[in-house]
Amino acid sequence: MPNAHATFDRLADHYRQIALLTSIESMLGWDERCLLPPAGGDYRAEQMTLLAGMVHKRLTEPWIGDALGELAGTDLAADPASNTGASIRQWKRQYDRKVKLPQSLVEELARIGVLGQQVWEKARRDDDFAAFAPILTKIIELKRQQADALGYPECRYDALLDDFEPGELTSNVARVLSGLRAELVPLVAEIAASGRTPDVSLVHRPFPVAQQAALGHEVAAKIGFDFARGRLDTTAHPFCSGLGPHDCRITTRYDAAYFNSAFFGILHEAGHAIYEQGLRPDWYGLPPGETVSLGIHESQSRLWENLVGRSRAFWQHFYPVVQTAFPQSLAAVPLDAFYFAINDVRPSLIRVEADEATYNLHILLRFELEQDLLNGDLSVPDLPAAWRDKYREYLGLEPANDAEGVLQDIHWSGGAIGYFATYSLGNLFASQFFAQANRDLGGLAAQFARGEFAPLRTWLAEKIHSQGQCYTAAQLVERVTGKPLSHAPLIAHLREKLGPLYGL
Amino acid sequence: MPNAHATFDRLADHYRQIALLTSIESMLGWDERCLLPPAGGDYRAEQMTLLAGMVHKRLTEPWIGDALGELAGTDLAADPASNTGASIRQWKRQYDRKVKLPQSLVEELARIGVLGQQVWEKARRDDDFAAFAPILTKIIELKRQQADALGYPECRYDALLDDFEPGELTSNVARVLSGLRAELVPLVAEIAASGRTPDVSLVHRPFPVAQQAALGHEVAAKIGFDFARGRLDTTAHPFCSGLGPHDCRITTRYDAAYFNSAFFGILHEAGHAIYEQGLRPDWYGLPPGETVSLGIHESQSRLWENLVGRSRAFWQHFYPVVQTAFPQSLAAVPLDAFYFAINDVRPSLIRVEADEATYNLHILLRFELEQDLLNGDLSVPDLPAAWRDKYREYLGLEPANDAEGVLQDIHWSGGAIGYFATYSLGNLFASQFFAQANRDLGGLAAQFARGEFAPLRTWLAEKIHSQGQCYTAAQLVERVTGKPLSHAPLIAHLREKLGPLYGL
Repeated sequence: MPNAHATFDRLADHYRQIALLTSIESMLGWDERCLLPPAGGDYRAEQMTLLAGMVHKRLTEPWIGDALGELAGTDLAADPASNTGASIRQWKRQYDRKVKLPQSLVEELARIGVLGQQVWEKARRDDDFAAFAPILTKIIELKRQQADALGYPECRYDALLDDFEPGELTSNVARVLSGLRAELVPLVAEIAASGRTPDVSLVHRPFPVAQQAALGHEVAAKIGFDFARGRLDTTAHPFCSGLGPHDCRITTRYDAAYFNSAFFGILHEAGHAIYEQGLRPDWYGLPPGETVSLGIHESQSRLWENLVGRSRAFWQHFYPVVQTAFPQSLAAVPLDAFYFAINDVRPSLIRVEADEATYNLHILLRFELEQDLLNGDLSVPDLPAAWRDKYREYLGLEPANDAEGVLQDIHWSGGAIGYFATYSLGNLFASQFFAQANRDLGGLAAQFARGEFAPLRTWLAEKIHSQGQCYTAAQLVERVTGKPLSHAPLIAHLREKLGPLYGL
Repeated sequence: MPNAHATFDRLADHYRQIALLTSIESMLGWDERCLLPPAGGDYRAEQMTLLAGMVHKRLTEPWIGDALGELAGTDLAADPASNTGASIRQWKRQYDRKVKLPQSLVEELARIGVLGQQVWEKARRDDDFAAFAPILTKIIELKRQQADALGYPECRYDALLDDFEPGELTSNVARVLSGLRAELVPLVAEIAASGRTPDVSLVHRPFPVAQQAALGHEVAAKIGFDFARGRLDTTAHPFCSGLGPHDCRITTRYDAAYFNSAFFGILHEAGHAIYEQGLRPDWYGLPPGETVSLGIHESQSRLWENLVGRSRAFWQHFYPVVQTAFPQSLAAVPLDAFYFAINDVRPSLIRVEADEATYNLHILLRFELEQDLLNGDLSVPDLPAAWRDKYREYLGLEPANDAEGVLQDIHWSGGAIGYFATYSLGNLFASQFFAQANRDLGGLAAQFARGEFAPLRTWLAEKIHSQGQCYTAAQLVERVTGKPLSHAPLIAHLREKLGPLYGL
């Protein structure tokens, strides 16, 4: 079928060129967040707007629809998990979504996303939810329109979730998260009732930035981040950005008086980057060489940050290194005291500062509130009260004001509704993958204690990274672990780790 | 004439979009030279090639020629020094040059430029001119074709020079440089005969990099580099790059055992950057907001590096600061000994290491050899011998091998023939501008000694930077100084400075 091959190649070349443009956009964005001189912002925005317009134009050229139509039903499309089949499937998915949305709605969403963030920033600073409410109401209304234009299998929220977690259903996420909640709330209560708390002051001591940076480079390289194909730099709001098949950059921020921030932040971002570095370079910018979903991406960061980086075995190997780096602060601190301090579990009000266990409760309540807003079961003016009620119910705490309550996150202000769920999905995927890796590789803890991380990384690369988008997230978790996504592995992991620490 | 205005605006919008693309290309190039991970080079080249192709396509769209034709003879074009007139003139110049060159020649020049640099690199490493000769012969042949396609007023070399120094004539450069040579050769001989030499070991002492970097930032800011609109970073081969109307970045390299390299390098690059920062931002990417020529650009870097930065007055102000930064190496060194050490004049073999006086002899002989090669008066195989002869004649030295002789510079290997002259033109422009500024502002030395650099910078911004391309370099020097370019101000400056140091 030579024609189909030629058509496929034409599409692949087209998407490779789009990837060149989007990677350039990522380069400009990375520079903006890490280096750009203060006065350079306006022109940088013009540069990025030009590229975004070029990308959008190329993604919606009508010949793409025709070419994909030609390929439907050919051998190349027959196996949806093959490189060609996955490409055709994902291109079609993306193209259909793009052309379903009216241009006016796309522009209105882009405009209000920028405006919303500006309004939100001021509202949070002023602790003034009323100032944010009108634009949030408008955003919700536009997101309803977006969902209706895209269509959905069961509920509007499906259409929005699909932007971040392709193919996932709200009902399935709700099922898993409610199972998680049913076990997490009592676990957190048991921990609180244990009366035990670690001495967290151990990690709030002087940790000179130069040593933190050297240590951060060392640990990132140790777990497998390839510095020949990446960098580690500093920024205000850490992130990971892929700028090409052999250029993936992570960022962090250093707090000279707090150990956890940079160290676990670097493990987290390195986890994201190891995923990107594990993609197949020859398929860069095409579905077989792209990451599956935000949830799977987050699973890779959480796996290295929490399941590896907060494990006792990891610290059996790494604690002497860290003690040597910070002798004044840690030489006299026993391993077990340090290990307990970095595994402190306690309900708190701010999501980004939450621990491994309570974090998911922060997500769950956002996921529920988003659905209520979208369905019309909750009006925006009633949102702050609903927020406080849920925090009281799930975490036993109530924010003193909206700035540290409903206004704490940027996501909604930019129109990202349906995004939060992927954070918890990431934690769930991570535990389920990790449990399977532990079975397949036999005793990861012993390997970590010897400083051996390559077997786990190789396993992840083979099972997940190199698969690109050949499977959806749900298919991938089932292929890799033999079971659909479940809350059980995360709960088992938390009970196994926290049980001994808190004497449960 | 509303139609002409609409046509002008359409062209201006088009060139503004091209500037967005070229500034993005500059951003990618800057990152490549400062930060790019080792494995990222191939994909970066693909990104830059895509952008270069987009720019080339936009620069040669046939409607541009039609639009410029419409504007010819209109009021907008009447005054060639007005914003609109200069724009139309420069657009036409650029468009005509682009369309005169056959696509095949453009591609062959690009290809052989890349190949030539690779061959040259290996030839220099192996000290093997014979390995470089065939491709240099080919390059010379292609440059002849390029000159013939472009056309020229007097000689082929004019057409190549015009790429770097628009509107300049070979005969005029030859006139000025031969005048310079006639006075420079005896001056250098007098210096050699004086028997005096500074103790240059004073600047070859320990200079910790962290202090050099802090000092570099301080001196760049002091002379007027605006860090809100720029950065200073490290790289292997220092350069200055404008990435937008408010983002101009300079780079340097630090040698922990040598003072001059970073300090004067930063002054040099900051001089380039102050020019870029002095352009009118509202005309960014359009001729009234662009730099005139490489010679004028180099005049700004040389002015701050040499005429300011190597002056005694500058050091009256700055030496205590530098002594405080490097007490171990300089606390016991008197100002005059330091000042003499940074003004050491002695013939040498390597252009980039040459001093303020002998530097121009390195340029002059390259300028002469280039013309001989282009005219066919010299064949490539005879070039090394001709090189040695000229070094013996002008500088009294002969390279021991071709690696530190004819193979030392990258320029020819990439097809940049006609470029070298702009280095000396820069020195000449700098002295002529500086002498005029000194007259206009009355006693710059006294201002420098008080640490006042703003009057000079403001004068340069008004007289030169803000003029953009409204005048050619030759017009500009005549407007600013009342005289055509001459070697006299540079010789006067050198005699005035070096006379007392060497007891001439």
